[in-house]
Amino acid sequence: MNIDKKYKKIIEIVKIKLSCSAHNLDHVFRVYNLCLLLAKYENNVDLEILIPSALLHDIARVEESQNETGEIDHAVLGSEMAEDILRGLEYDEEKIKKIKHCIIAHRFRTGNMPNTIEAKILFDSDKLDVIGASGIARTFMLAGQFGQRLSADEPLTDYLKANTVENGRLKEVSKHTPFIEYELKFKKIPDKLYTKKAKEIGKKRLKFMEEYFNKLKLEIEGIE
Amino acid sequence: MNIDKKYKKIIEIVKIKLSCSAHNLDHVFRVYNLCLLLAKYENNVDLEILIPSALLHDIARVEESQNETGEIDHAVLGSEMAEDILRGLEYDEEKIKKIKHCIIAHRFRTGNMPNTIEAKILFDSDKLDVIGASGIARTFMLAGQFGQRLSADEPLTDYLKANTVENGRLKEVSKHTPFIEYELKFKKIPDKLYTKKAKEIGKKRLKFMEEYFNKLKLEIEGIE
Repeated sequence: MNIDKKYKKIIEIVKIKLSCSAHNLDHVFRVYNLCLLLAKYENNVDLEILIPSALLHDIARVEESQNETGEIDHAVLGSEMAEDILRGLEYDEEKIKKIKHCIIAHRFRTGNMPNTIEAKILFDSDKLDVIGASGIARTFMLAGQFGQRLSADEPLTDYLKANTVENGRLKEVSKHTPFIEYELKFKKIPDKLYTKKAKEIGKKRLKFMEEYFNKLKLEIEGIE
Repeated sequence: MNIDKKYKKIIEIVKIKLSCSAHNLDHVFRVYNLCLLLAKYENNVDLEILIPSALLHDIARVEESQNETGEIDHAVLGSEMAEDILRGLEYDEEKIKKIKHCIIAHRFRTGNMPNTIEAKILFDSDKLDVIGASGIARTFMLAGQFGQRLSADEPLTDYLKANTVENGRLKEVSKHTPFIEYELKFKKIPDKLYTKKAKEIGKKRLKFMEEYFNKLKLEIEGIE
């Protein structure tokens, strides 16, 4: 099977797997596009590792969200699911190992740091999608889905008093709003990125986000 | 009862009435703030008409959304509900009539055009909240709530082939996305406004929205 056919097969599998979760599917394709962009600015990137990693990185998202115990880590399970898929497509063991590393290391909390250039690019692309115009869209879509408010009238200090933060993760989200996500999470992202180009894009995206939230605040107050 | 006490009472009633729909409550206060801003740029605005109108304009939102027949128009029912509330607060008949006009005429589709400066200001404020940074937040919150996609990959022409537009209202929303809302609805708003200041703010908000959607498109394509 040639490489193009393999990619086509992988895309088919991802589409079926994430068909009930179009948001994640769209995210996968944005991350894929970003990976190709970042790859142009780095040396010795193996696209035959990066491309399947980008396409498969969230393959276990549905399993994770459907499991109510919270025990499934989609990065860990995803790397195992990817292994089976790739073996079925006749990938050799060396490549499978490298792709699995990219998938397992794409998440902040998994505890596996990305140690190849392909893993770093995937990690960076996945995080960049949380900020900028895409990040704004995503955070408000989640706010709508979970009945959060648009308002900025809950002071952050009060929020922090009522909610504990553990490893950067909020334990209670009752008063969660996109403004709070922006203050506590999005602002920290550019510093966590690995590649130079991603850091550059990250700063630009964060600046855009800052302008957006400042404008939103002024609009809410009826100033403009 | 003095006027401040009356406003306090009205706010209490609105808060209780819209407590199960925090989005609408936040919207009411944004519209209220905008009304006060626009009022500064017009002559002979009666704030004793404008303020209760702004606070009460969406009072029937919950009734409209809970009624599945689609027969309730929140502008019509809202003006009737406001009448009862205002009478209870000892508003005189002349004022009640003027406030009712503002409420019934705040909606595009009701068929009642705003013909007082207070009604025009309320209409404009309500429409301005659909665009700009607030509009972006609102459209993506609705997208999240109704499972719409973030993608821009459904060409508008295909969408229009599959969905009919009647009086600017989409009859089928299966493939609805914020991009489509922007193209079909938001872009037209500044032209529909009455007051000069609102048109000025509207153009600025629309420009901000345009920049946002352009940036989002570039991000989706992995260009920046």
